[in-house]
Amino acid sequence: MKKNEIPDIIISRLPIYLRALRHMQTQQKQTTSSQELGARVGLSAAQIRKDLSQFGEFGKQGTGYNIVFLVDKLREILRVNRVWDVAVIGMGDMGHALARYQGFNDRGFRVAMVFDNDPGKVNTQAGNFIIQDMKGIVPAIRESGIRVAMLCVPAESAQEVTDLLVEAGIKAILNYAPISLKVPEDVHVQYLDPSIGLQRMTYYLE
Amino acid sequence: MKKNEIPDIIISRLPIYLRALRHMQTQQKQTTSSQELGARVGLSAAQIRKDLSQFGEFGKQGTGYNIVFLVDKLREILRVNRVWDVAVIGMGDMGHALARYQGFNDRGFRVAMVFDNDPGKVNTQAGNFIIQDMKGIVPAIRESGIRVAMLCVPAESAQEVTDLLVEAGIKAILNYAPISLKVPEDVHVQYLDPSIGLQRMTYYLE
Repeated sequence: MKKNEIPDIIISRLPIYLRALRHMQTQQKQTTSSQELGARVGLSAAQIRKDLSQFGEFGKQGTGYNIVFLVDKLREILRVNRVWDVAVIGMGDMGHALARYQGFNDRGFRVAMVFDNDPGKVNTQAGNFIIQDMKGIVPAIRESGIRVAMLCVPAESAQEVTDLLVEAGIKAILNYAPISLKVPEDVHVQYLDPSIGLQRMTYYLE
Repeated sequence: MKKNEIPDIIISRLPIYLRALRHMQTQQKQTTSSQELGARVGLSAAQIRKDLSQFGEFGKQGTGYNIVFLVDKLREILRVNRVWDVAVIGMGDMGHALARYQGFNDRGFRVAMVFDNDPGKVNTQAGNFIIQDMKGIVPAIRESGIRVAMLCVPAESAQEVTDLLVEAGIKAILNYAPISLKVPEDVHVQYLDPSIGLQRMTYYLE
């Protein structure tokens, strides 16, 4: 599979399909159809078929998709058939919530390290973690081999911290800070700014 | 402006432009160009011009965009030139973080009510709020006129709670629960599942 041939927009939908299929598994379902999956995620059956056909032939005419098989395939494509260690940067409310978040279990991620720059927090316990000093973040992340970070620092320091993360070898940043980050081309950023999510809906409200 | 004529994908980018323009304002900038704005948000200048042209003529050939004017226009289009009251449903770690989140200030939103179903939490204080009982959520939200909610309950109860929110008149849901929600056509949902954000990036990691 050549990575550059699949449009980003299709890749961005695969985790949604995976989540819906996992949910079907909890309901003891064995097979599904592009119609049913589409209805669950709010897309047309044609879109589902087109997206999945990028990666091979997953369904059978008439019998639909085997859920276990499709889940395995999607996990493989998305590279979450393994566990990625993740660093949480900034242990305010959001950082604490993420460090304790149960929703990463079995979805490919595990919080492995947490950092803050507040001397009052450094070396204290937060859940299962000892909060590490931001001062040592570059060597700590580099030695750990961690490639994925969740950024929960204030907007004012987000770019500066991002530069350190890039230096440390981080290649994927989930950004909770309300600011667009500048990163090299081989570093990926996803934005989870709640105000943006809300502003995307108010346009439609009467 | 006829709402249905503007593609959703364009609407979804406007909050990103607004955030970048607000950030330019904090840097005392007066004007910007589609090139500069595009570079800040990772899109082409042509895309920026095309998106903004849907709503009228905002820029001048040669002088670019007046930032104050464009910010005002975008706030008006997105209907965040007012303050929307928001209800937080589910006061676990994520709900607490959102109830205390400072990033809504000046972006069109204010947390106004918080709810939980845990008898140990109901009627206790959380920051500036008294946690209200989920049992009374339908009349409480209906009387308040609140139309926007942030959903932070576990996946197992998310659909059931969503049905109550719809009954109460909620029209926009920011969903932190890791599950696709079924809602009527006039109710909007945005998903902020951190695992999805992470899974959208691991595909690209070597």
